[in-house]
Amino acid sequence: MSDDVDVPESHPRYESLLTRHRIEAGVDMGITSRQGLIAQGRGEAYDYLLGEETIDSADRAERAAAAYLLSAEHAVISVNGNAAALVPGELVELSEVTGADLEVNLFNRTEERIERIAEYLKQHGAEAVRGLTADGRIPGLDHERAKVDADGIGDADVVLVPLEDGDRAEALGEMGKTELVVDLNPLSRSAQVATVPIVDNIIRAIPAITEHARELHEDRDAQRTAIDSFDASTALTDAEAAIRGGA
Amino acid sequence: MSDDVDVPESHPRYESLLTRHRIEAGVDMGITSRQGLIAQGRGEAYDYLLGEETIDSADRAERAAAAYLLSAEHAVISVNGNAAALVPGELVELSEVTGADLEVNLFNRTEERIERIAEYLKQHGAEAVRGLTADGRIPGLDHERAKVDADGIGDADVVLVPLEDGDRAEALGEMGKTELVVDLNPLSRSAQVATVPIVDNIIRAIPAITEHARELHEDRDAQRTAIDSFDASTALTDAEAAIRGGA
Repeated sequence: MSDDVDVPESHPRYESLLTRHRIEAGVDMGITSRQGLIAQGRGEAYDYLLGEETIDSADRAERAAAAYLLSAEHAVISVNGNAAALVPGELVELSEVTGADLEVNLFNRTEERIERIAEYLKQHGAEAVRGLTADGRIPGLDHERAKVDADGIGDADVVLVPLEDGDRAEALGEMGKTELVVDLNPLSRSAQVATVPIVDNIIRAIPAITEHARELHEDRDAQRTAIDSFDASTALTDAEAAIRGGA
Repeated sequence: MSDDVDVPESHPRYESLLTRHRIEAGVDMGITSRQGLIAQGRGEAYDYLLGEETIDSADRAERAAAAYLLSAEHAVISVNGNAAALVPGELVELSEVTGADLEVNLFNRTEERIERIAEYLKQHGAEAVRGLTADGRIPGLDHERAKVDADGIGDADVVLVPLEDGDRAEALGEMGKTELVVDLNPLSRSAQVATVPIVDNIIRAIPAITEHARELHEDRDAQRTAIDSFDASTALTDAEAAIRGGA
């Protein structure tokens, strides 16, 4: 990571300060919303209680997520304002390694913000970014919140949704999609309904999924093992124990 | 509470939604900062784990805080952007009941934001608001962060600092002041250095302190009992257990 941020990498709070710097830059660029700032604060608190590290069960979840992305018919990575602000290059890299599409999908949707986020991802190397067509709908959601690309999330069998709203996570699950959710609160509805809940900071989670994907690439047996050996409810219990009990 | 917010009081998340509404209105008015939004999110997460209720030890802390404010030579309530946005009328009422001064004091200080906050408190009934003179300094802090009114916080023996930064809380403590801190994270430095750490949502804490102050008013013995029977380290341990163990 080589951001223009005045904090030495040796600083004990480097990752946390860098994260905050990126989020604030996201606001300046018009890609992070107010709700995004509040959500960032919630994440900080859970991560603090988690010990600001990737716990073992989260690493297993990241490996399972990589396997699902690789073995999907059509995988899509959903990108919102905070995800774009925090890990733009990392999302593009994950997309390249797994072959998953990138689709911008916002809880508080405006065309302007979607275009800015798509542009920001392209600045970080993305060749194609979905989300602007918005000709598909997720059943059971309000009009604006239901919009997806018909040939993107609408058509996907596996969706990675970092930092997703609970209603949307639930509705996507009801469409029968395999949902990979990154969420630092193991008690959140998004984490609870996920096929693979990844209770980890997105800053650590996305590069970890990419690393697992590189390892699992073209090894169908290893992909199957990563998926079969992962248990969502155990992962949630482990994460809650880490947060409640101290990591 | 009678805000212009489209959420019925019966809604299970009423308090949480009202809080968020007030914070967003604070941004619109230019009194809540970006850092304030992130801090709000952190508070939401801790309050969620706490069960979004005032635990017994927090109630005892609120009673002790009321007693300290009433028995002070010169008590000052420090008001930052989030406190002003969340509980403007409640802070004015507490000030009236206890005789404590109100002083605007910001971590990211700008004259404009101080004036807006002072004006907002006056709209909620405050007669005098300190913080604009800024002719005193807290030793050991950067210039802008050190500013206080010499005849306000500078002169106070008891200071209520809701949602205070750790460095400032520590520096105020080193000045020998009795510090009453409202902070939802019992592990934060502000809570750790406080004479009375109040681990509760400010939305619940300020009215609770006012209620205790009404009861303890002119009863010196009861004030002494509330102070003597309060133990800060027990309160912090209780709060952490509630957050870690589930309320």
